[in-house]
Amino acid sequence: MTGKVPFDLKEYLNEKKGLVDKALDSYFPDPSGPASDVIKAMKYSLFAGGKRLRPILCMAGAEAVGGDGKFVLPVACAIELIHTYSLIHDDLPVMDDDDIRRGKPTNHKVFGEAIALLAGDGLLTEAFHLMTADELIALVSPHLILKVISLIAAAAGYGGMVGGQVVDIQWEGKAPDFPIVEYIHTHKTGAMINASVTSGAMLAAGDGPRLTAITSYGKKIGLAFQISDDILDIEGDSETMGKTAGADVEKGKMTYPAVIGLNKSKQIQSDLVEKAIDSLKIFDHGAEPLRQIARYIIKRKK
Amino acid sequence: MTGKVPFDLKEYLNEKKGLVDKALDSYFPDPSGPASDVIKAMKYSLFAGGKRLRPILCMAGAEAVGGDGKFVLPVACAIELIHTYSLIHDDLPVMDDDDIRRGKPTNHKVFGEAIALLAGDGLLTEAFHLMTADELIALVSPHLILKVISLIAAAAGYGGMVGGQVVDIQWEGKAPDFPIVEYIHTHKTGAMINASVTSGAMLAAGDGPRLTAITSYGKKIGLAFQISDDILDIEGDSETMGKTAGADVEKGKMTYPAVIGLNKSKQIQSDLVEKAIDSLKIFDHGAEPLRQIARYIIKRKK
Repeated sequence: MTGKVPFDLKEYLNEKKGLVDKALDSYFPDPSGPASDVIKAMKYSLFAGGKRLRPILCMAGAEAVGGDGKFVLPVACAIELIHTYSLIHDDLPVMDDDDIRRGKPTNHKVFGEAIALLAGDGLLTEAFHLMTADELIALVSPHLILKVISLIAAAAGYGGMVGGQVVDIQWEGKAPDFPIVEYIHTHKTGAMINASVTSGAMLAAGDGPRLTAITSYGKKIGLAFQISDDILDIEGDSETMGKTAGADVEKGKMTYPAVIGLNKSKQIQSDLVEKAIDSLKIFDHGAEPLRQIARYIIKRKK
Repeated sequence: MTGKVPFDLKEYLNEKKGLVDKALDSYFPDPSGPASDVIKAMKYSLFAGGKRLRPILCMAGAEAVGGDGKFVLPVACAIELIHTYSLIHDDLPVMDDDDIRRGKPTNHKVFGEAIALLAGDGLLTEAFHLMTADELIALVSPHLILKVISLIAAAAGYGGMVGGQVVDIQWEGKAPDFPIVEYIHTHKTGAMINASVTSGAMLAAGDGPRLTAITSYGKKIGLAFQISDDILDIEGDSETMGKTAGADVEKGKMTYPAVIGLNKSKQIQSDLVEKAIDSLKIFDHGAEPLRQIARYIIKRKK
């Protein structure tokens, strides 16, 4: 394509993160009233320094098919609420029992386990509330919004993220099993990453081969992202990551490196990224953010 | 109204419960695959003998405004999923720490705390998935379905049920406080009971003064239901109820009897039921189930 401007990923991520942070802030009230502690707890984790990768992917998905990323902000932010709830519940003592997340005490360390549990429940519920926002209905057909809610609920539920978390917990400390680690990664992490980019494209009226291409991309980077997380657990720096390196190994988590070794894991994630980018060949410069994000996913340090 | 047939509440509740049970069963697969335990856990609590009061109210709300209760089954059942998730999370050791519910071991006693937590998350998520069912979209305008999802999410979230649970937990063992117990009851229980009957009426195209009347009814019976629960904790029989009588008193829960005494609590619940029935005066025989359910709520033994 001629006339395309140079693309600066760092600038793009910063700009989009700013939009997401501003929108998220606007969706939540200042904590007040008898239940103010749960609002504080929800906002604590929501504004604890997340990269906003999922909402950015949602906006980039919309842009790839010619839409405006800003229009999909309620859904992009709803996905971040779902991601945040999953981290709060995952960090609870009955689950992964983590004390530090993004360099800060985990939600239950600050607010106690009962409020952390309820903050997670509140974020998950509010995500679906947000997807019915008037500002979204003004721009997108209600029927399409229902399809997107359906897609996201399926990706977050027992056939997606929740199912992946169940298997992740149940297979801790067990003998390496490739079909199981693949199930965990594609469900626990992959399903919602794919839903992020696919929902953005759907909301911007992406359909047919374009939507198929986006979903193909989403599946591949979803798995690549979790493999890169596994690799960071081994090679990463605790301070940079804001969580304890080596935690997966210590807990006996079923990871790609644990099952097939570090080198093979790196090869698979690189292949996935190349194939993800290849999926986007029907798109022009509008899909450049998605291409660059795919490469960033395996280069990131946190 | 002439020509009306005698109304048998017991028969009505049984018939509707049968429809709900059958629909719920159809929405869930047989447990299989790596995450089968969470499906088992979700179904365990979903089929543990619930009265199905909320879905029945949803169907009765539709019928009061001239609709067909069967058409709203996906939403009615979604509300039962949300109710069931709230019980599973509420029973967890970090919350109310209950071992018995409906005469059976609570979810975490059977499946462990991690799976119980995730079963609750899975039910809440699946509730929103169910509200996007094709069978519903075929009958109700997508815009109206979005309004109903919004209503239910708001009633279930931090400004509704979750908010009520937070205050319920935080005020255990504290000095009696009427505004607080009123907040707990209207939020923890009342919001979703009101959303049940109101969503049914909305889906059946109820609007204007008819919808206002239904919501007025829903608010009153929602509060009356929780007061009657408080009274059952004092006067009820553990075996009949399937849970331990006196548990609220023992935990120092903020209840109406604890704050204003048993007699005054009974008076308030009776007044609420009469006012709820009075709210329905613009309706004919179609609202008879709602009238009878209001009376049943304070007469029930479990």
